[in-house]
Amino acid sequence: MATLGDIAVSAAINILSAFIFLLAFAILRIQPFNDRVYFPKWYLKGLRSSASHSGAFVRRVVNLDFRSYIRFLNWMPEALKMPEPELIDHAGLDSAVYLRIYLMGLKIFVPIAFLAWAVLVPVNYTNDTLKIAQLVSNVTASDIDKLSISNVPLKSQRFWTHIVMAYAFTFWTCRVLLKEYEKVASMRLQFLSAEGRRPDQFTVLVRNVPPDPDESVSELVEHFFLVNHPHHYLTHQVVCNANKLASLVKKKKSKKNWLDYYQLKYDRNPLQRPLKKVLLNIQSDISQTGFLGLWGEKVDVIDHHTSEIEKLSEEIGEERERVLKDPKSIMPAAFVSFKTRWGAAVCAQTQQSRNPTLWLTEWAPEPRDVYWENLAIPYMSLTVRRLIIGVAFFFLTIFFMIPIASVQALASIEGIEKRAPFLKPVIEIKFIKSVIQGFLPGIALKLFLIFLPTILMIMSKFEGFLSISSLERRSATRYYIFLIINVFFGSVLTGAAFEQLNSFIKQSANEIPKTIGVAVPLKATFFITYIMVDGWAGIAGEVLMLKPLIIYHLKNIFLVKTEKDREEAMDPGSLGFNTGEPRIQLYFLLGLVYATVTPVLLPFIIIFFAFAYVVFRHQIINVYNQEYESGAAFWPDVHGRVITALVISQLALLGLMSTKEAAQSAPFLIALPVLTIWFHRFCQGRHKSAFVKYPLQEAMMKDTLERARDPNFNLKPYLQDAYIHPVFKGGDDDDEDDDLSKKLESDSVLVPTKRQSRKNTPAPSRISKASSPSLSGVVKDGDP
Amino acid sequence: MATLGDIAVSAAINILSAFIFLLAFAILRIQPFNDRVYFPKWYLKGLRSSASHSGAFVRRVVNLDFRSYIRFLNWMPEALKMPEPELIDHAGLDSAVYLRIYLMGLKIFVPIAFLAWAVLVPVNYTNDTLKIAQLVSNVTASDIDKLSISNVPLKSQRFWTHIVMAYAFTFWTCRVLLKEYEKVASMRLQFLSAEGRRPDQFTVLVRNVPPDPDESVSELVEHFFLVNHPHHYLTHQVVCNANKLASLVKKKKSKKNWLDYYQLKYDRNPLQRPLKKVLLNIQSDISQTGFLGLWGEKVDVIDHHTSEIEKLSEEIGEERERVLKDPKSIMPAAFVSFKTRWGAAVCAQTQQSRNPTLWLTEWAPEPRDVYWENLAIPYMSLTVRRLIIGVAFFFLTIFFMIPIASVQALASIEGIEKRAPFLKPVIEIKFIKSVIQGFLPGIALKLFLIFLPTILMIMSKFEGFLSISSLERRSATRYYIFLIINVFFGSVLTGAAFEQLNSFIKQSANEIPKTIGVAVPLKATFFITYIMVDGWAGIAGEVLMLKPLIIYHLKNIFLVKTEKDREEAMDPGSLGFNTGEPRIQLYFLLGLVYATVTPVLLPFIIIFFAFAYVVFRHQIINVYNQEYESGAAFWPDVHGRVITALVISQLALLGLMSTKEAAQSAPFLIALPVLTIWFHRFCQGRHKSAFVKYPLQEAMMKDTLERARDPNFNLKPYLQDAYIHPVFKGGDDDDEDDDLSKKLESDSVLVPTKRQSRKNTPAPSRISKASSPSLSGVVKDGDP
Repeated sequence: MATLGDIAVSAAINILSAFIFLLAFAILRIQPFNDRVYFPKWYLKGLRSSASHSGAFVRRVVNLDFRSYIRFLNWMPEALKMPEPELIDHAGLDSAVYLRIYLMGLKIFVPIAFLAWAVLVPVNYTNDTLKIAQLVSNVTASDIDKLSISNVPLKSQRFWTHIVMAYAFTFWTCRVLLKEYEKVASMRLQFLSAEGRRPDQFTVLVRNVPPDPDESVSELVEHFFLVNHPHHYLTHQVVCNANKLASLVKKKKSKKNWLDYYQLKYDRNPLQRPLKKVLLNIQSDISQTGFLGLWGEKVDVIDHHTSEIEKLSEEIGEERERVLKDPKSIMPAAFVSFKTRWGAAVCAQTQQSRNPTLWLTEWAPEPRDVYWENLAIPYMSLTVRRLIIGVAFFFLTIFFMIPIASVQALASIEGIEKRAPFLKPVIEIKFIKSVIQGFLPGIALKLFLIFLPTILMIMSKFEGFLSISSLERRSATRYYIFLIINVFFGSVLTGAAFEQLNSFIKQSANEIPKTIGVAVPLKATFFITYIMVDGWAGIAGEVLMLKPLIIYHLKNIFLVKTEKDREEAMDPGSLGFNTGEPRIQLYFLLGLVYATVTPVLLPFIIIFFAFAYVVFRHQIINVYNQEYESGAAFWPDVHGRVITALVISQLALLGLMSTKEAAQSAPFLIALPVLTIWFHRFCQGRHKSAFVKYPLQEAMMKDTLERARDPNFNLKPYLQDAYIHPVFKGGDDDDEDDDLSKKLESDSVLVPTKRQSRKNTPAPSRISKASSPSLSGVVKDGDP
Repeated sequence: MATLGDIAVSAAINILSAFIFLLAFAILRIQPFNDRVYFPKWYLKGLRSSASHSGAFVRRVVNLDFRSYIRFLNWMPEALKMPEPELIDHAGLDSAVYLRIYLMGLKIFVPIAFLAWAVLVPVNYTNDTLKIAQLVSNVTASDIDKLSISNVPLKSQRFWTHIVMAYAFTFWTCRVLLKEYEKVASMRLQFLSAEGRRPDQFTVLVRNVPPDPDESVSELVEHFFLVNHPHHYLTHQVVCNANKLASLVKKKKSKKNWLDYYQLKYDRNPLQRPLKKVLLNIQSDISQTGFLGLWGEKVDVIDHHTSEIEKLSEEIGEERERVLKDPKSIMPAAFVSFKTRWGAAVCAQTQQSRNPTLWLTEWAPEPRDVYWENLAIPYMSLTVRRLIIGVAFFFLTIFFMIPIASVQALASIEGIEKRAPFLKPVIEIKFIKSVIQGFLPGIALKLFLIFLPTILMIMSKFEGFLSISSLERRSATRYYIFLIINVFFGSVLTGAAFEQLNSFIKQSANEIPKTIGVAVPLKATFFITYIMVDGWAGIAGEVLMLKPLIIYHLKNIFLVKTEKDREEAMDPGSLGFNTGEPRIQLYFLLGLVYATVTPVLLPFIIIFFAFAYVVFRHQIINVYNQEYESGAAFWPDVHGRVITALVISQLALLGLMSTKEAAQSAPFLIALPVLTIWFHRFCQGRHKSAFVKYPLQEAMMKDTLERARDPNFNLKPYLQDAYIHPVFKGGDDDDEDDDLSKKLESDSVLVPTKRQSRKNTPAPSRISKASSPSLSGVVKDGDP
């Protein structure tokens, strides 16, 4: 058990590292050559550009204005300055609501912390159980434990305080949750109704169109909707299976990158044309680079790549024609557009045909949110996939430690010596030995944890979700479950998940909360350290953006020729809902569990939430570029997980209380989870539909307004091409586009805007430009 | 443990009692004076009447045709003769599908029984574990146990047979379930699309209309739907709070009954006018009958009742005017009708307003299915009610034994003597003592079990369901849970539910299936007896209809004056889904649990299903008069409960196997419940929507057909009065109606048809009349 002193040292170290990160960030971000790493959002919006080539070279690269070094923390107030409506306008509702999660953490935990410190800490501290225990059995207890529930003697009447506090904390958390749910729901409806005309408002995705021997899918769709929605149907767009085409286009792009790289190399060193060993394969048209470039004929790389790109272009042309003509590449799915929002809302929310697995309709995701690969999975296959993934996830969560443990055994000194005796002399070197012993076993676990979100994402993709947003939401749910089981319970009970499961199965139902409840107070110091390392330092690391910084500069050196390339080298990233949100939820869980047990933990949680709020607000304003806009559709998940955390905390307290032999008081806690779950169901009934359904009244209102405002607007051409597979849209006229964009570049500086429309980002709002003077000030400062 | 001989004796007794019931039924049913008890359905349909007063009096009362006594069991083939489509036409889809539950029982258990007897019985019998046990430790084992799994030695490889059989049985059950779900879904859609025009096809129930200071509810509804469903809205009918009016009307009816009774008494004995002590209460207009008629003034009862009825009529008139005028009695709910089925389908299945708790729309139930009392409960109140009932039901199920046990203690000899010492001399009489000891303690439990469905129904009503069909479905679910916990687990584990719960909480998760699994084979003989007593004899008692028989004859003696009274005296009853279906499900549970463990039980289950099928088919054809028609909306519940039974049986087998130390084979059973639950979800996804949603294609098709067939039909007057509270519809113009119906009676014999429309039964189909020659033969036979 750590003493207060230990905690203080750990806090000092973590605060120092966070401070170092922040200092590095403060210095790096005001260097003009890093501008595209730390302010990519403004470039993407077309509000900032590196087009002006005036000024000295040094000033373009390094910031020499020393005053800006002094004010190195002033990004914090700046990040907080932008009001919420403007933030929504600037970065979308998803980002703005994501920030509200941190804010909600503050709203929940600040009053709880005050109450806990005012009531529980004195109640716990004025006992001397631990002192007596120390005297009697020489148990060492730290100051932190004296502030926790462990210091209250068995059968004490003081436990009533904890029960009353548990009720108060639950009540307060529910109150905040309800208010937030209300607020977010109204923000979402506000957002949806304030939005301009968007294709997904009029469009419904229809899947599982039944096969028909006489009609093509397109004709069938048209006839079906003309008959069943006669006054509302407008047009439709059939979905093609362009997965192969997309992969060809991707291949071509990568070849072009290499070509650019070699071209640049050659330009810098015109004396030596780059050569490479290439395995000429006569069977296939496209020759393969020899394995690791070890054998094969030496050819001129530039010529080689140029010819390959030409071949690929031809192939792409053929494939495209095939996709458009071949009826087999037409999928039994279509995007159907309606004349009014009302018509689309009706079609999306009703069942079309007798057979509920045919003519499935749902709201079309935003065009940029569509996950095209999954559009053609039939219903039967979907249910089987769901089963497979369910079972797979169960095994992944419970038994993931088994393969990792075996890899660890394999990566140990003995394991390597056994399997590869010829390496023995190398390994026996002391330095290498210590590296292997200290580093290799951990790396397997670390690698697994790094790749876990990707694995979960692949699982969700296999399950057949249709939009990126729903993929991320599902992955987030799974990641949360994984974190709860393996990080929270894993740390509390110290054992791999399968061992816990085994012991839980063998334990009686009322023993489980007891086991957890007893272990919880003992782990308080561990979790305090965890919060400081993972939370404080981690967030400070996030703001530094080390990985994008390095990659950007590497790309800048090896690939960038044109302004366009430099734009592509930027990696603004996005919020990453699938990993970020579950991590926040872990802090909610810790805060709620320890609020009644060890209130000392609460200030650490509060600092995390406050710090993360500022950092992410800054990142959202300056860096992240959301891939899609789901209108905060994730909120019901967030709400549900906080409720889960609340119920876990109540059960743990119940278990703890029953071991404290406070038998007469413990039963009063049973009502808490029942009430909490009921509250959850009430909230879902009251507010969830705002995130799932689209009320007809809203649709009708918007239709009427629009008709009055713009009576002559022709919707059909507007919707005609909205849902075309991105490969057909402009991904492949790269060649022509290149020239075009180059031409445009020389004409004006509005290129970024042009690219945005190609990248399908929403048109930048002009308001945000006008209303962020402080930031545009920074732009001028940093711009050469 | 009972031997085969004991079972045979028990079977003989039960078969005999069933035979006696059937004999009594066969004799009673062909007596003309019982005709209205055993064939009320035909009277209600107007296909049979006691109008012809010709023939001798004796022949009108007693059947003297001795040939009909010989063929006393020929109602069975007759009941099976009517083909299913005709049955649907005759008794509605609900009844026809209800019969399919029994048929499904046969479909599931006949092949399972064959397979079990062919494979499991020999495998079990050819061991001699029990013989050895008998020799060693003098354990008595019956022949039945020799056929059961108990006879297989520990760690035997033979358990593989049971595991394979468990898979085979699960597969077969799921196959039948899937086929039945498909069939019932298509029957439902067929039924809905074949139906004629019905008001509920065009009507949506709107609840929680928000209050508006400027407009009345009626105006508000009209404006809202004119704006949001401009092309489809037709008319609406506001809901009034007529609960007080309804109770007044009921009171008046009961007074009229008494008046009729005294009138008849006076008619028979004109010398003595009936007198009664009445407490004249000056404050209230309506005088109260003195407590038990013990004090008060003596008045002429006929005059008294006549004057009271007059007063009540006045009051009713006033109340009616008040309800229609007073805005406070208008509820924030309305039945909104649309021009097309398409419009109604859209409105019923979408959300109307931003606030999901306002303007709640759902399909209007059939007019006769509406539960008027619950139409005005606001959303907030509903969620609180649900919580209260949930908690109340939990306590009712788990702790119901506690109050009953205390009543039993109170009703014991000692209890009575303690509390009422003055009764001691009476109680000490030997005969009374034995009655109290033998009878009173049991009666508390018996009374509770008799009133349980009523209690559950009251709970559902309190919960706020809007239609009688949904009330019954919810009550059925609760009753099923009660039966599983208290009858199945209660019998298997022999202990009250709260004791079980207590031990389960203290047991580990994998001990619970073991406890159940071990106990299951021991209880086989008990359940065989249960099936015979509750199933066989119970069903035979059902067909006898003793209670309606007695009540009808009592009413006939004391109340009946006119033909109309005689009709009202008939009590055809209905299927009683809320009690009948959960009981059937108990047999599914028993059959599935014992299929692998003690296959001897299966033939008893099969006999139950076959016998019940015949009896209920007869009852549905001749007796029951369904109150409403829900179009088999209960099927998803039926399906879900069989799945529950399947999972329970699998877990019990798993527990049993793990105690048999068949450790290497038991894990193969874990996949079964997972697969079964997945199968359930697949079925729900595939077929449930047919019971919940109304596809737009169907609606459009019916609209188009109807427009072509009947282009000039004026829908508005047809729908205008469809959803008026029954009190306004004719319940209270009894007086005028009385005269009217008398007049009509003398004019023609079509009176029953007239009453039907008042009672809101569907118009009788003429097809069924033409196509049931055998039954009409019976009618002629039995008619005087």
